[in-house]
Amino acid sequence: MEANGSMTPQNMTDVPWLYDVNLEDTNWIITSAFMIFTMQTGFGMLESGCVSIKNEVNIMMKNVVDIVLGGLTYWFFGYAMSFGRSPMNNGFIAFGDYFVDPPLDDKLKGAVYAAFIFQLSFATTATTIVSGAMAERCNFKAYCIFSFLNTFIYCIPAGWIWGNHGFLRQMGAVDIAGSGAVHLIGGSSAVACAIMLGPRLGRYDNGIKPLPLGNPVNAVMGLFVLWWGWLAFNSGSTYGLSGDKWHYAARAAVMTMMASFGGGTLSILYSLIRLGGKLDAMDVINGILGSLVSITGGCFLYKGWHSLLIGAIGALLTCISMPLFDMAGIDDPVGASSVHGVSGIWGIIAIGIFAQNPYPLKTTSGRSGVLNGGGWYLLGVQSVAAVSLLTWGICSSFVLLWCINKIVTIRMKVQDELLGADLTEHFVRHGNVGVSRALSALRSVYDTSEIEKLEGVGYNPGHDLNLDIVKNLTTKKKYRLSQVLRIITKNRKMGCNSPRSLIRSRKFKSKMNCSKAGDKKNGTQVNGIPDNKPGFIRPLSTTDTNVTHLAWVN
Amino acid sequence: MEANGSMTPQNMTDVPWLYDVNLEDTNWIITSAFMIFTMQTGFGMLESGCVSIKNEVNIMMKNVVDIVLGGLTYWFFGYAMSFGRSPMNNGFIAFGDYFVDPPLDDKLKGAVYAAFIFQLSFATTATTIVSGAMAERCNFKAYCIFSFLNTFIYCIPAGWIWGNHGFLRQMGAVDIAGSGAVHLIGGSSAVACAIMLGPRLGRYDNGIKPLPLGNPVNAVMGLFVLWWGWLAFNSGSTYGLSGDKWHYAARAAVMTMMASFGGGTLSILYSLIRLGGKLDAMDVINGILGSLVSITGGCFLYKGWHSLLIGAIGALLTCISMPLFDMAGIDDPVGASSVHGVSGIWGIIAIGIFAQNPYPLKTTSGRSGVLNGGGWYLLGVQSVAAVSLLTWGICSSFVLLWCINKIVTIRMKVQDELLGADLTEHFVRHGNVGVSRALSALRSVYDTSEIEKLEGVGYNPGHDLNLDIVKNLTTKKKYRLSQVLRIITKNRKMGCNSPRSLIRSRKFKSKMNCSKAGDKKNGTQVNGIPDNKPGFIRPLSTTDTNVTHLAWVN
Amino acid sequence: MEANGSMTPQNMTDVPWLYDVNLEDTNWIITSAFMIFTMQTGFGMLESGCVSIKNEVNIMMKNVVDIVLGGLTYWFFGYAMSFGRSPMNNGFIAFGDYFVDPPLDDKLKGAVYAAFIFQLSFATTATTIVSGAMAERCNFKAYCIFSFLNTFIYCIPAGWIWGNHGFLRQMGAVDIAGSGAVHLIGGSSAVACAIMLGPRLGRYDNGIKPLPLGNPVNAVMGLFVLWWGWLAFNSGSTYGLSGDKWHYAARAAVMTMMASFGGGTLSILYSLIRLGGKLDAMDVINGILGSLVSITGGCFLYKGWHSLLIGAIGALLTCISMPLFDMAGIDDPVGASSVHGVSGIWGIIAIGIFAQNPYPLKTTSGRSGVLNGGGWYLLGVQSVAAVSLLTWGICSSFVLLWCINKIVTIRMKVQDELLGADLTEHFVRHGNVGVSRALSALRSVYDTSEIEKLEGVGYNPGHDLNLDIVKNLTTKKKYRLSQVLRIITKNRKMGCNSPRSLIRSRKFKSKMNCSKAGDKKNGTQVNGIPDNKPGFIRPLSTTDTNVTHLAWVN
Repeated sequence: MEANGSMTPQNMTDVPWLYDVNLEDTNWIITSAFMIFTMQTGFGMLESGCVSIKNEVNIMMKNVVDIVLGGLTYWFFGYAMSFGRSPMNNGFIAFGDYFVDPPLDDKLKGAVYAAFIFQLSFATTATTIVSGAMAERCNFKAYCIFSFLNTFIYCIPAGWIWGNHGFLRQMGAVDIAGSGAVHLIGGSSAVACAIMLGPRLGRYDNGIKPLPLGNPVNAVMGLFVLWWGWLAFNSGSTYGLSGDKWHYAARAAVMTMMASFGGGTLSILYSLIRLGGKLDAMDVINGILGSLVSITGGCFLYKGWHSLLIGAIGALLTCISMPLFDMAGIDDPVGASSVHGVSGIWGIIAIGIFAQNPYPLKTTSGRSGVLNGGGWYLLGVQSVAAVSLLTWGICSSFVLLWCINKIVTIRMKVQDELLGADLTEHFVRHGNVGVSRALSALRSVYDTSEIEKLEGVGYNPGHDLNLDIVKNLTTKKKYRLSQVLRIITKNRKMGCNSPRSLIRSRKFKSKMNCSKAGDKKNGTQVNGIPDNKPGFIRPLSTTDTNVTHLAWVN
Repeated sequence: MEANGSMTPQNMTDVPWLYDVNLEDTNWIITSAFMIFTMQTGFGMLESGCVSIKNEVNIMMKNVVDIVLGGLTYWFFGYAMSFGRSPMNNGFIAFGDYFVDPPLDDKLKGAVYAAFIFQLSFATTATTIVSGAMAERCNFKAYCIFSFLNTFIYCIPAGWIWGNHGFLRQMGAVDIAGSGAVHLIGGSSAVACAIMLGPRLGRYDNGIKPLPLGNPVNAVMGLFVLWWGWLAFNSGSTYGLSGDKWHYAARAAVMTMMASFGGGTLSILYSLIRLGGKLDAMDVINGILGSLVSITGGCFLYKGWHSLLIGAIGALLTCISMPLFDMAGIDDPVGASSVHGVSGIWGIIAIGIFAQNPYPLKTTSGRSGVLNGGGWYLLGVQSVAAVSLLTWGICSSFVLLWCINKIVTIRMKVQDELLGADLTEHFVRHGNVGVSRALSALRSVYDTSEIEKLEGVGYNPGHDLNLDIVKNLTTKKKYRLSQVLRIITKNRKMGCNSPRSLIRSRKFKSKMNCSKAGDKKNGTQVNGIPDNKPGFIRPLSTTDTNVTHLAWVN
Repeated sequence: MEANGSMTPQNMTDVPWLYDVNLEDTNWIITSAFMIFTMQTGFGMLESGCVSIKNEVNIMMKNVVDIVLGGLTYWFFGYAMSFGRSPMNNGFIAFGDYFVDPPLDDKLKGAVYAAFIFQLSFATTATTIVSGAMAERCNFKAYCIFSFLNTFIYCIPAGWIWGNHGFLRQMGAVDIAGSGAVHLIGGSSAVACAIMLGPRLGRYDNGIKPLPLGNPVNAVMGLFVLWWGWLAFNSGSTYGLSGDKWHYAARAAVMTMMASFGGGTLSILYSLIRLGGKLDAMDVINGILGSLVSITGGCFLYKGWHSLLIGAIGALLTCISMPLFDMAGIDDPVGASSVHGVSGIWGIIAIGIFAQNPYPLKTTSGRSGVLNGGGWYLLGVQSVAAVSLLTWGICSSFVLLWCINKIVTIRMKVQDELLGADLTEHFVRHGNVGVSRALSALRSVYDTSEIEKLEGVGYNPGHDLNLDIVKNLTTKKKYRLSQVLRIITKNRKMGCNSPRSLIRSRKFKSKMNCSKAGDKKNGTQVNGIPDNKPGFIRPLSTTDTNVTHLAWVN
């Protein structure tokens, strides 16, 4: 069944490899795509766990934008640039198949949809890689434009290596699951973006020591989610199970784990040695991710020992290059340049050294790496691929960001950076992270009226009035609990809380006066909170205003 | 193989469509069900991220209860009401197949179990939708009863549209993955519950502006988890891969993503315009969820552009209706009414407009929507379905909650609401969210003795005594570290910490006196903490009591 | 197709059951393995949510180490000890197949890789179970050694029950998905480790009441992730779909959920009764996990009612035994001993009572449990299995930890425990959890210079200097915002922030002086922060030093 069940290229010579799938292959491809999409959760948690708390919501929203706008353009023209079927295709770019949508009488419709969902999961991953490198200082609107157009940066080189037209593919370059097309492109784009944006304010005031993570538990959780998603990423890249593909799908899964074991062990040792017996979470997280990036390109071409070694070297390159970027003044908050860029290069090169020819699959066009007696050709062509992808990733990102910068300044305003993007872009006010201090410093020159009114995360301001009622009634007038609660409940039912009845009610006007008074009072209190107190717990106010206010309740 | 491998209805005419599956279909169905269950994680994180911090554990526990009690009744009678095989079945409700458990010699046993696990994953999802709308003010025990009986609300209309007996199915209504049966029912139930419970205390004191989210990162993470789970939800609803089903499974996945791109783009634009260039996380989260709800009903019936449009309209309806509910005084903390209710209606109606006939599948009984030349019949019957489901969802929920309210008051007590359900229902004491203030206001009339003793989340109170020992020994008596540690370690080994030896030991009595003293002291300190300080860091106590206490250690 | 598609043992009698799989089976096995790996995320979130905040990163890192080092040794020798193919195999242990890596011309290569990735997912799960029981007090390096060697503890008994050579397998003992081999071994190992380590400092000072969870929402999220992963764990243990296996895979999924419904209901009732109407999150979390452990061993051998009952009893045993361990002075922070140990025993025994013979599968060698007329043999052999596994788990763990303790003391130093492992092992400084107090108590005798300099999680210290500049310029010299921002931007561009230009610049020396001064100042401030304030918001410093410092900027 395995031998006959798949539509082999011999049977349907005009079907591109991308659409040469049957039911079982499609099951594998779609299931893998679903699991690959979970990597977005991983990237989101990793990045939001790595940045400072006052930017954590902003980076999550950027991850959402990556999927939405990046996905939209991928459908518009991205897929077309990588896999379009047009006679105009050349080695650099493909055309046709814009707005992918095969009609229902297309016999390949299932294959096309499966290919699109699978490639889409890769494309959104590639886009998201860059968001971490731009964290904490990139203007949100500029980032939206970047997400929208980042598709160019990824899809053209993805076509080089995976499209039938691509010049790297035609030279015989191999990149099974995207060490190059996904990670090296993403990583080199990250370098360019980090350079263009410049370091975060005050980043290097205390040397190149990394800033503290905002939520290390979330960051490690992000690692975990990425790790398991990576299994589908690599294993799904056999692009099916039929024929002998299932053997190699299983091998890809094993070798992915083996590389992470090698990389994990190496990065644990590296960190323990570097810090005199302590373990830095970012070393381990990024080391493991670097090893996963390294194995991605040739995931089912390696032996176990080789995978261990490739992962270990990938992790080492990531760990060593992180401080080097900082020494060069390139501020990459999550280390995307090292993880995806540096280890991505290694992942492409490693194929030329260690690859075995996975017969009967034609993945390597029958070639092997240097260590398996395949000679130097594969290593040479892989080096060409690495250089091409690196050059493209850096140059295209520079050009794109330079253009965007002409429309919207890509760097956040200084005051927004000091206040944090969560507050200035999303009206989310965190406590205990220096926001009150920044507000205090900026207050005299910056209109903070809107921000001062914001309540802190997870704090229910509506409870304050009711607590004041309780306080007043119990301390001054000696009511009992049942009486107090009856008043509050009556208060609630009389529509004090309902905007509908509030508008209809004749008490509307007096109510409005009350709540305006309350607002002004609140505002003043927020202003009055000294910087060394948690910003969100207001002192009790038992002023006469409230007692007057309560008059109508009784 | 695709043609012959499936047991087509022609071969086994007496098998209901629900059990007409083979090995490959079952693989797809079970795998999808497993992924759909992960949506519970998504709902949990979304809801706990949206509510105030002092209710976040409570909403997670309600999500657990939804699965446990809702699942139990689904096995008892829920599945039976939707899919039971009995001659007594009528258009409104099915009978038979209670306590689903086919014997081992039933040839359909695999199909029945697969159907049950798949439908169970839908049922628990439907139940969970409502929990968000009831957040922060619903009595926990009343909610447990509601979860237990909510099965009625979902399963009867699910039978209308998916059961062979259902009157909507027989009229030709289409709802592939449940825009109506799952989301519209859940959303309309949410409206009814929000009305019955009334708004949260003080909800509308400052107008209809939403309260701040408790943990926006968790909320966005919840969106991500739901998003990927939704792929399986819709794609799995082809209910198999055999025959031509795999083509449509792939299409469902693509169109689900397309709708979210349309909805995401629309909600980002909506929020940017509404807030003058800022982006509100809830607009984006609920906009995307609304677009996913809209596409659910006809997920593999649409073209790409149509999916984009359907998603965009769904997102717009969600975003616009959220403040409308608030203006009507209907307080739905997570916006479930808009996301699932309003967009659910649109999802059902959209099928009548945009659906293509997915031949050779009989999903639409050969019909098409208005725009595909199918005439008005499908739109008509979809409208009937929308009205039926909406009416049922609202009415049945009102009746159910009204009955429950006779047994257990569904609204939390005022004091419990002010203190937060985490504290009053689960003994979890958060810091910095106003709990101390609420305690202070209520102390004179409410017995808070049990609560005052609680330690804050993540704080190890057992370390205090040891720190006092260290402090005393080092400041007063000038011990060196090694000596101090020896004393503490000896202390620990002598069983000061072990309840077993503690009971046996002759030092039991004197020890008890010490720790009682300690308790009293701690209690006083907690009471004494002013409201504007983080509640959980106690001032150092270097009183003589401790020195006396230490005497026996030496 | 189902009948002929699988390579039945009749065709290839020399293939061990582990490698007797075809394409469809492999699809199932690998997909299940991927989902099982997500359970690591669940364990991580559950454990980090349960421990005190000052140890939450440490426990996440231990979970990472479990996978990396545990996975490495599993490849080295673990798989070999369970499933090696060697003539030297005896009932106790297997040999051969070290460093699993079949050559490309091995016809079984796909089967071997699939088996390895599936068994690896089980092995890492087994290792991780123990980490919770050792939380908050185990030396990190000792734990690394433990993770590395824990493979012995798991793999030898896994071979007893799953390897062709195993004495329990040959006696006819049944343990489908590892109630015994995974959970009972993990749980009994947890007991031994908890005893060896002793209770946390001050754990029982206030009686046996559990310490407050650090992040209950994360803990419940961990439950959810484990719950869905468990579906793949049990359902995937049919080890394929071909033949009649798919019927039982579906049954396993249903019965897994049924058990959790039984266990969830029971633990909710237990907690409500125990606490007078309140619900303790740990009771519910561990009750449900206990019910899942119970069903694991015979997941597709049971009827629905039996599954409900088995789950309920498993949950009850877990809930009741948790305080018993505490009363015995065995401090298991997450309750792994109860969840995996006690319910694991029940899971093994239950098979002897309730199992049905799942013909045509040979899982039970044709036997049934007592209640299905199978007589007492199966119950007897299951009891032997339970005793064997329990004895091995406890004894081998004691021996292993005893040996490790000779190399590295397994218990953390007292001062490290008081400060929290996040700070002392990973340089992560949390706020508001007593760390400042511990530092203050230890300062006179312990070198805290390195720690004092650490910034709190998520706090960007680099913003302080810039805020000081803003403050100075706006309050003292009446600059306008635009001027201030120009100075700061110029400051940044002049390379004040860039380490590269910083080194090259002639302003290097004076800059260094400034920042040293700043450092010293910061240090003093940190020291000066009283213990009852949030540690990370520094008072504004508007001293002359800053004004002088700014001179060169202008």
